[in-house]
Amino acid sequence: MLLEEIDKSIKTYPDFPEKGIFFRDIMPIFSKPELFSELIENMASAPIFKDVEAIIAIDARGFLFASGIALKLGIPMIVARKPGKLPGHLITKSYELEYGSNSLSMQIESLKPFQKYAIVDDLLATGGTVQCVSNIVKSLGKEVLGLLVVIELSKLNGTLKLDFPVFSQISY
Amino acid sequence: MLLEEIDKSIKTYPDFPEKGIFFRDIMPIFSKPELFSELIENMASAPIFKDVEAIIAIDARGFLFASGIALKLGIPMIVARKPGKLPGHLITKSYELEYGSNSLSMQIESLKPFQKYAIVDDLLATGGTVQCVSNIVKSLGKEVLGLLVVIELSKLNGTLKLDFPVFSQISY
Repeated sequence: MLLEEIDKSIKTYPDFPEKGIFFRDIMPIFSKPELFSELIENMASAPIFKDVEAIIAIDARGFLFASGIALKLGIPMIVARKPGKLPGHLITKSYELEYGSNSLSMQIESLKPFQKYAIVDDLLATGGTVQCVSNIVKSLGKEVLGLLVVIELSKLNGTLKLDFPVFSQISY
Repeated sequence: MLLEEIDKSIKTYPDFPEKGIFFRDIMPIFSKPELFSELIENMASAPIFKDVEAIIAIDARGFLFASGIALKLGIPMIVARKPGKLPGHLITKSYELEYGSNSLSMQIESLKPFQKYAIVDDLLATGGTVQCVSNIVKSLGKEVLGLLVVIELSKLNGTLKLDFPVFSQISY
């Protein structure tokens, strides 16, 4: 039921943002408060949360889900952001995107209090972004217990890059 | 009490992201689940919400608060995003930033079902970003009932640009 509603709400756009990319737009989900709420509840029920100490929200669509999960569970949230967005002492790593390359930064201070993390994003494609965050976390001797996404593009084999479980709501 | 806790949590960075800018970093708030939850409750209690039909979340830090408020109140959320981020038929307007200039886009489809909006962002500086979103909304014959932010930089007189009430948690 939830799955069906999510599937109906996600709109697909061919050749966005670049030729050859089949873009899945999750924005219509937020126009349906009951669906959004049920989705957050589902994501927050992943078994890893019994051990997770903090959520890592990936810039920017990941923020929309991570914030809800953090509030629902009453656990801390920290962020991984695109270049130039975060002040302070940062740890930065680069990654290959589905289209192009980029880097992500986290505030070292924000990672200090916690050891075990769940990463939250809207979509898992090639897994480059998530692997980048995982590399940041591991470089400080800390642990990623799992990834939560709404959509998994299973043909792109993103899960193969990751050494932790992926909890997705819908797979294309 | 809430105010004091928020004030203690916000870290300031001189000359970020550019010389002369005194950056207020709200990220530490999210590391404190009780504070974040209380803050969302406070923002969601603004009187305009008795009439608001949907929340507009501003890319990207606005997402972190808007999502929580939308879930708390069970009302729809739509987004205003930076260039190149949203697919579909867009309405785009440009604005002057505290540092530089930029533009924001919204999906026309997302605005169709609702008439009265609240805008949510992390911080009100010169008001350019919010005015830009307000211009988009008005150009479709719709209405902004108010702005919710955590921080207001009162010396920059952002409120003077806006013809609707501003609900801020803390003012510098």
